[in-house]
Amino acid sequence: MKDLPLKNIWVLEFCQYLSGPCATLRLADLGARVIKIERPNKGEAGRKLAIENQWVGEDSLLFHTINRNKDSFAADLNDPKDREWVDKLIAKADVLIHNFRPGTMEKKGLDYASVKKLNRSIIYASISGYGEEGPWKNKPGQDLLIQSLSGLAYTTGNKQDNPVPFGLGLGDYLCGNQAVQGILAALIRKKRTGQGAKLELSLLESAVDFQFELFTTYFQSKRVPIRSSVNNAHTLLSAPYGIYKTADGYLAVAMMPLQRLNRAIDCVALAGFTEAEAFTKRDEIKCVLTHHFKTNTTAHWLERSQPHDLWMAPVMNWDQLRSTQTYRQLQVEQHVALNGGKTLTTTRCPIRMDGTVVHAAKPAPAVGEQTDVIKAELSRK
Amino acid sequence: MKDLPLKNIWVLEFCQYLSGPCATLRLADLGARVIKIERPNKGEAGRKLAIENQWVGEDSLLFHTINRNKDSFAADLNDPKDREWVDKLIAKADVLIHNFRPGTMEKKGLDYASVKKLNRSIIYASISGYGEEGPWKNKPGQDLLIQSLSGLAYTTGNKQDNPVPFGLGLGDYLCGNQAVQGILAALIRKKRTGQGAKLELSLLESAVDFQFELFTTYFQSKRVPIRSSVNNAHTLLSAPYGIYKTADGYLAVAMMPLQRLNRAIDCVALAGFTEAEAFTKRDEIKCVLTHHFKTNTTAHWLERSQPHDLWMAPVMNWDQLRSTQTYRQLQVEQHVALNGGKTLTTTRCPIRMDGTVVHAAKPAPAVGEQTDVIKAELSRK
Repeated sequence: MKDLPLKNIWVLEFCQYLSGPCATLRLADLGARVIKIERPNKGEAGRKLAIENQWVGEDSLLFHTINRNKDSFAADLNDPKDREWVDKLIAKADVLIHNFRPGTMEKKGLDYASVKKLNRSIIYASISGYGEEGPWKNKPGQDLLIQSLSGLAYTTGNKQDNPVPFGLGLGDYLCGNQAVQGILAALIRKKRTGQGAKLELSLLESAVDFQFELFTTYFQSKRVPIRSSVNNAHTLLSAPYGIYKTADGYLAVAMMPLQRLNRAIDCVALAGFTEAEAFTKRDEIKCVLTHHFKTNTTAHWLERSQPHDLWMAPVMNWDQLRSTQTYRQLQVEQHVALNGGKTLTTTRCPIRMDGTVVHAAKPAPAVGEQTDVIKAELSRK
Repeated sequence: MKDLPLKNIWVLEFCQYLSGPCATLRLADLGARVIKIERPNKGEAGRKLAIENQWVGEDSLLFHTINRNKDSFAADLNDPKDREWVDKLIAKADVLIHNFRPGTMEKKGLDYASVKKLNRSIIYASISGYGEEGPWKNKPGQDLLIQSLSGLAYTTGNKQDNPVPFGLGLGDYLCGNQAVQGILAALIRKKRTGQGAKLELSLLESAVDFQFELFTTYFQSKRVPIRSSVNNAHTLLSAPYGIYKTADGYLAVAMMPLQRLNRAIDCVALAGFTEAEAFTKRDEIKCVLTHHFKTNTTAHWLERSQPHDLWMAPVMNWDQLRSTQTYRQLQVEQHVALNGGKTLTTTRCPIRMDGTVVHAAKPAPAVGEQTDVIKAELSRK
């Protein structure tokens, strides 16, 4: 993309781990200049958080995934000289974001009120686990705990199972994405009125928003959702909705009238059920289908569903997805240049603009990699 | 919030069902004026999409959840008079968003090239299932199919289970959230350069982005993730990570060193494992813990974990969450005024700005509810 939308926007990141860095990654991909403010030498804690024990040099692959396309400025916030530089950066920045536990930025004199004195119109975004006040404010804002406290784990898996968490970290991602929305909206207001803004987000509120359809249904019905005993996929949807085992793999079967399904798959036992029973007898119906779909292959069922325009799809793992024409055509992969001529393959920003995808080959910075360059830039002005 | 950030921004929504309306809901909450363009009488198809068969008057509760705080303008796009009004609206709007299958807007003469002739600097956002070109472009962009095709279903549940879908619709939500980011970024660029933008998003690309950490790990390791056989919670994390049954409920246990956990829970069998085995022997370790946690209550384990500062939490359903002080304090619920004095309880925008939460009591519109008012406004200018 030639003219990235957030060109000339400076973002200071006082963050660690996932939620904040995930927000600024998007801002960087959209053209903002993101500067991580890190303690000298060790840098932010996320550099040492690895999954599957994968590393890129001294930093984790996870760190590299979330921090590509950013600069790093090393500063000891207790050293008055370093602090002077940080204050200069604050005066110049459009956005400051942090995701430390409530109280931490205050102790450093970097709370909104203090920062505002240096830059009246700054957009100041903070991300916490459970809000900045209240009995949980010091609880760890960790994804599995957020999933467990927000009711999310009770939506997934079958009725007889333990509550089942979603198999990836989602709290930080969701909250980071919403932080981006708040920051961009506040930048639009700033252009119009000159005002800055204080934005507050929390992992728990984001996890509730993620469930907004289910929560609203629950508020009216007063019933907590009950998972289906067979191939649960959505607590509030009727049979056949779910994933079924076939003779050679798995088949996703979305919403469709039972007898239209039956015309495609010829299941004698299904003929006995009416559409009115699709929710009340969903476990029995899904049990019938479980046995029927096992008798032939995924390709067979997909072929039979075609003339009836039924919403079905094979269940694919990543090897299978990656081999499809659609995946290649969407160009979701990009290559980040690492030191020493190596490259790192990762995904790209999912927003396509003016017909092109955004690629950013700049790797995650070493701690303080841009400190001198940034000091020189600040001195020139 | 007194001065909503997107005040004076006009958004035209040519959408149905979830993804597009979910994007404009956020824009409306942040202050934009969102106008749904709907066919007369029947309106958009989402009005009849119900979950758990819950209705608010003639429209589904789901429609009300996603379309509060919007206006509706009824227009038959094939009627030249109506079309003239729509063209006037396009000329005045800042943003147009649609989520019809590729080709539909073209047939109506509402593709980007045509719309641009009426409004050179409009931000035009389109949401598809799998991109606007390619072999899947006419496939239904439905959530369970997206989860199944994107590999997501292979992250959740235990190794011996079928692939397990996440128990709520997430594809539309994620893509809608990213559409908001693209639209806001493009509005910022428009202010700076006067340019409009064409934005393209797809449910599949959003579902890949949602998995960006896992995909990047997979690109380097070349291994598709293997779910743990016991209490799987994240395919790439070591024991004890997972949700465990206790004597009276469930306990979420996040990442922590095994022997620090052992000091808190006194589990003899756990003493035999080293930290180096936490990933390679995670199923054995989690099996040991499964038996141990069953022997006492959730409260007991939480109390014992406290002095050791371990990342644990109870697993709560929504009734339990709703009874906590934190939930009440965060004020995640809001009340929308319905006709006839009734109210609808729903969640609110998760972004807190300048210390206040955004509440919007305006309900979803009836089809064409604001047609006359909007015509009068357009005529005045």
